[in-house]
Amino acid sequence: MPDPIVFSGGTAGAWSVADVTAVSGASLASVARVDKGARPAAAATWILSGVTSNLRYTNSTEKRVLDAAPSVLGRPAATRAALIPITKSAAWWALAQDERRAVLEEQSRHIAIGSEYLAVVSRQLVHCRDQPGAVFDFLTWFEFAPADEALFDELLAKLRTSPEWQFVEREVDIRLEKAL
Amino acid sequence: MPDPIVFSGGTAGAWSVADVTAVSGASLASVARVDKGARPAAAATWILSGVTSNLRYTNSTEKRVLDAAPSVLGRPAATRAALIPITKSAAWWALAQDERRAVLEEQSRHIAIGSEYLAVVSRQLVHCRDQPGAVFDFLTWFEFAPADEALFDELLAKLRTSPEWQFVEREVDIRLEKAL
Repeated sequence: MPDPIVFSGGTAGAWSVADVTAVSGASLASVARVDKGARPAAAATWILSGVTSNLRYTNSTEKRVLDAAPSVLGRPAATRAALIPITKSAAWWALAQDERRAVLEEQSRHIAIGSEYLAVVSRQLVHCRDQPGAVFDFLTWFEFAPADEALFDELLAKLRTSPEWQFVEREVDIRLEKAL
Repeated sequence: MPDPIVFSGGTAGAWSVADVTAVSGASLASVARVDKGARPAAAATWILSGVTSNLRYTNSTEKRVLDAAPSVLGRPAATRAALIPITKSAAWWALAQDERRAVLEEQSRHIAIGSEYLAVVSRQLVHCRDQPGAVFDFLTWFEFAPADEALFDELLAKLRTSPEWQFVEREVDIRLEKAL
């Protein structure tokens, strides 16, 4: 079943905001903490919510690779995280399924690139385009150890220079540290 | 942008309920009217809501066929309608994208069969699986002239005997007539 996931930006939550970069389009209001849970936190400055869902592009061969190394969230060593909300363009959503798949994987190697970093970057994809009133299409979430942040940046650099990213019209990169 | 669509079953609305069949699983509470709009109707017995969304399986060749004969809702002659909420099994949603596509089209010819009836059956696919708390995955909506109801039944019979329908675990077929 789809699982609701809510990110609340404000003064409460397990994650301290270390840095915010508006990669494309407008940023989000500045906050000190981010809470990640099944419900909104009280008195949040912003709330971004969505659901985990079924795979949209991954084929059976690629799924076997992912299933062999499932993302484990909450690893004690993973004290850094990134919340990266993304909105794709109307042109992207107007493409047929095979056209989107071709850009995402055959041209951009999105799934293959992500698979190379499974051992160090845990991730969760939250869908929100189909939520009424949503301003982002996806809320992407990543957890990693402090020593692996450079590898995470390498992963992002590969994706951001791919043909798929020409369809990204808003992207905010929020770096987080586990609050002690 | 995804467009919110809300079906409210109760005593108000433009559509009179002519017949309800629980094809698979539980039926819905009996109502006299169904309202279709962007917001819930007041005092509804049940409310089913979702959004229109991007194509999930249709490839570019199939999309050209559909785009050449776009579904027009609200045709004056189309005084009959069907609201058919559907839930697919967990096994369906656990399949990779190419596996779902293979069942839906290569094995079941869902898109091809639907395309044969474009001239007489207008349709709208409302997605709700990713709505928190939704009990159906899709709310499928069809409009046709009274004389074409037999063709619509033929279309349904083809789909319901296809391999894809082995993954349908709940289906309620609500036949409607435009209230005068």
